[in-house]
Amino acid sequence: MEKKKHIMAPGIRELLEKGKYSEITDIIKELFSPDIAELLQSLEHEEIVEIVKIIPRENFPEIFSYLLGEYQILILQDLTTGRLKNILDEMPPDERADLFLKITPDLKKQLLSVMSEKEKKDVEELIQYRENTAGALMTTDFAKVPPQITVEEATSILRKTALKRETIYYIYVTTDNDKLLGVFSLKDLILASESKIITEIMNDHFIKVNLEDDQEEVATVFKKYDLLALPVVDTYGNIHGIITVDDIVDVIEKEDTEDFHKMAAIETIEDEYLKTPFSVVARKRIGWLLLLLVTYTVSTQLLKHYSYALESVMALVFFIPMLSGSAGNAGTQSATLITRGLATGEIKFKQTFQIMKREICMGITLGIILGCLGFMRAYFMHTNPMLGLTIGSSLALVITIATFIGGLLPIFLSKVGIDPAISAGPFLTTILDITSIVIYFQVAKMLLGLAQ
Amino acid sequence: MEKKKHIMAPGIRELLEKGKYSEITDIIKELFSPDIAELLQSLEHEEIVEIVKIIPRENFPEIFSYLLGEYQILILQDLTTGRLKNILDEMPPDERADLFLKITPDLKKQLLSVMSEKEKKDVEELIQYRENTAGALMTTDFAKVPPQITVEEATSILRKTALKRETIYYIYVTTDNDKLLGVFSLKDLILASESKIITEIMNDHFIKVNLEDDQEEVATVFKKYDLLALPVVDTYGNIHGIITVDDIVDVIEKEDTEDFHKMAAIETIEDEYLKTPFSVVARKRIGWLLLLLVTYTVSTQLLKHYSYALESVMALVFFIPMLSGSAGNAGTQSATLITRGLATGEIKFKQTFQIMKREICMGITLGIILGCLGFMRAYFMHTNPMLGLTIGSSLALVITIATFIGGLLPIFLSKVGIDPAISAGPFLTTILDITSIVIYFQVAKMLLGLAQ
Repeated sequence: MEKKKHIMAPGIRELLEKGKYSEITDIIKELFSPDIAELLQSLEHEEIVEIVKIIPRENFPEIFSYLLGEYQILILQDLTTGRLKNILDEMPPDERADLFLKITPDLKKQLLSVMSEKEKKDVEELIQYRENTAGALMTTDFAKVPPQITVEEATSILRKTALKRETIYYIYVTTDNDKLLGVFSLKDLILASESKIITEIMNDHFIKVNLEDDQEEVATVFKKYDLLALPVVDTYGNIHGIITVDDIVDVIEKEDTEDFHKMAAIETIEDEYLKTPFSVVARKRIGWLLLLLVTYTVSTQLLKHYSYALESVMALVFFIPMLSGSAGNAGTQSATLITRGLATGEIKFKQTFQIMKREICMGITLGIILGCLGFMRAYFMHTNPMLGLTIGSSLALVITIATFIGGLLPIFLSKVGIDPAISAGPFLTTILDITSIVIYFQVAKMLLGLAQ
Repeated sequence: MEKKKHIMAPGIRELLEKGKYSEITDIIKELFSPDIAELLQSLEHEEIVEIVKIIPRENFPEIFSYLLGEYQILILQDLTTGRLKNILDEMPPDERADLFLKITPDLKKQLLSVMSEKEKKDVEELIQYRENTAGALMTTDFAKVPPQITVEEATSILRKTALKRETIYYIYVTTDNDKLLGVFSLKDLILASESKIITEIMNDHFIKVNLEDDQEEVATVFKKYDLLALPVVDTYGNIHGIITVDDIVDVIEKEDTEDFHKMAAIETIEDEYLKTPFSVVARKRIGWLLLLLVTYTVSTQLLKHYSYALESVMALVFFIPMLSGSAGNAGTQSATLITRGLATGEIKFKQTFQIMKREICMGITLGIILGCLGFMRAYFMHTNPMLGLTIGSSLALVITIATFIGGLLPIFLSKVGIDPAISAGPFLTTILDITSIVIYFQVAKMLLGLAQ
């Protein structure tokens, strides 16, 4: 494990060595849980064990839930049964399920053996859901009340149960079998008079998601309706958990990172860059690089095929990087605009025709401007008007086509079920390299009258 | 304005034509505010005006705040003074300030003239903050109580003020001059006994941001501490507003979109792709394309310089796209990994040395693998071992250097205050095109013994 340095680590280490535990307690008291987790992760194994002993028992489950999986496992193995039970029972159910997905069957058995029945059942439910679905994302830690009680009774139920619930700004109204009837906020509760019945203050017109819904869809719902939490139900309308907005922030960031990596022809890397072993990163990178290298066989063969043209007009070679480079740049611009539009949901399939029209016009506009510049560039360098015309018109043509392909490729890929993010990177530039060579030499053959 | 089609638009249009207003009311009652806003945006001006008349007055400010700026302005101009005042006074202060930033001075004067004093002062405070700062992002709509009252008194204050506050899951404890002393949640309030004093239940160890903080920093704080809302204070510790997590979701998405666009050499486009006029998109794209085109002058000149080598071994030409393409691909991978790592905060400057080491090793590994393949490719195509060796070793060298430059460029740019996102796109590939030509021909000169 590569360790991030933490500004407090050396100081804490010194205090530990001198046995000044109460000073450490004072320092830790001033920190927030995520900061304590960061600090722990920058220390050595034995140091972590010592610090964990000092942290008050009631504060530790929260700190523990901010630790990376590898540190959680490290710490669990050193704890007494009592403390282990305390942490496992108190940590947020969704974080706990994530932990269980990372550990060995042996450790799993050991941990389950110390946990309370309810928490055990909870873990077993949560880990069964497929990754990246609403079910896998949700927590079972939410507040619920029956429908036919008064506001006063509901308040008293919440007083008794709220301490254990992290999320009670929404309270869900359910039948005995967990059928979801409605929802109200803590604010509604405070505003209502105590004798009112819950069904009078609850909202039965609410947004929910299904256990099997993809996390990207769930994120879209959160963004559209500006929500703090969403109930997750099964096909019978029974509530199984809720998803909170802080988990959605992570989903959005993770999905965007995946798209960035795909755009750069890197396979999905699950963990942080510096935390991922060298060999894994190398493997995630080499596949696409090799594939693209092989694809360049086509451009090599094409240039070989056109070598007669190069032999008669050597100057044609000089402009190859400029042509294929500009095609790649213009195509990447279009592909990125459309890919991102599809990802954020602002562009829909039914707008394909509108986008095609737009990208063709854009291609022609950009092509003409760059083509004129290319013409001048080649003309003044070689004072050969026909060569200038060849460069200029190829450039115009290549840019037009690149813009069009770049705009259409993501829509096409998305339609056939491939993530469009791969379209806005090396995959596209390789295609455009080949396209631009063909166009260039065909134009050159015509304008310069070259024959095989 | 280009209109998105809405599945209900034709049906609503028909009902409007037939004058069946009560049926429209029933349909709208079943929809959530963001959906009603979407529906309105798919209708024509006169139709919107008619529908707005039907929507109950108390529901409209929320729907209004979900409309795009252009539709808000359209609707405002058709309203009676009473309704105008109602909407302007009731809409969330941050959304209202956004609206005021978009309208003409004349309209601004007209709107201010109908607004209440408090709301008028509010707008004037909010619009003064620089774009993309915490001040510009915050809302002034938050709940506050003085410190020396009881829980019962606080509850009664909240009952009176809560109806107007959208966000009251956190309540801020302030002095008369708005100095922020602490914070407690609605949950804390419900759990506390009624006779307790607020200072006993409040938390005086809380996270806050400054008015001038950049919105990206604010987003980082939200992500790290899993918050729902954050107080915004001035340098004296006085609270001016709060930022809520739903606005942060928008910030994250917008910043990522900007990064995607920068990576593709497109200047920041503020609005959605299809909503941005053609000429604006063209302008945002052409600048970089022209600059990059001019940069290719270097590669053109280089190839001209090396044309003696091409004349003796024409086959060298065939591999130019493969070499520069592979360099671009490997470099883009590194640049994207590092750029994204910097953006999400997982990579820090102090790790530069660690990253350099890693990217050099990665470059050598990828270079050797691809170099071997390149050697075989060239050898079997031309059965010339020296040409094969030239291609193979140039490829290995070029990939190594590209990976290193790609990894270091974002860190360097970030250090000198340029957004590293521009490094992972056409800017880098153009540099690498030039680098790879130089390396290639130098290697060829050495191995093939070519002299000028």
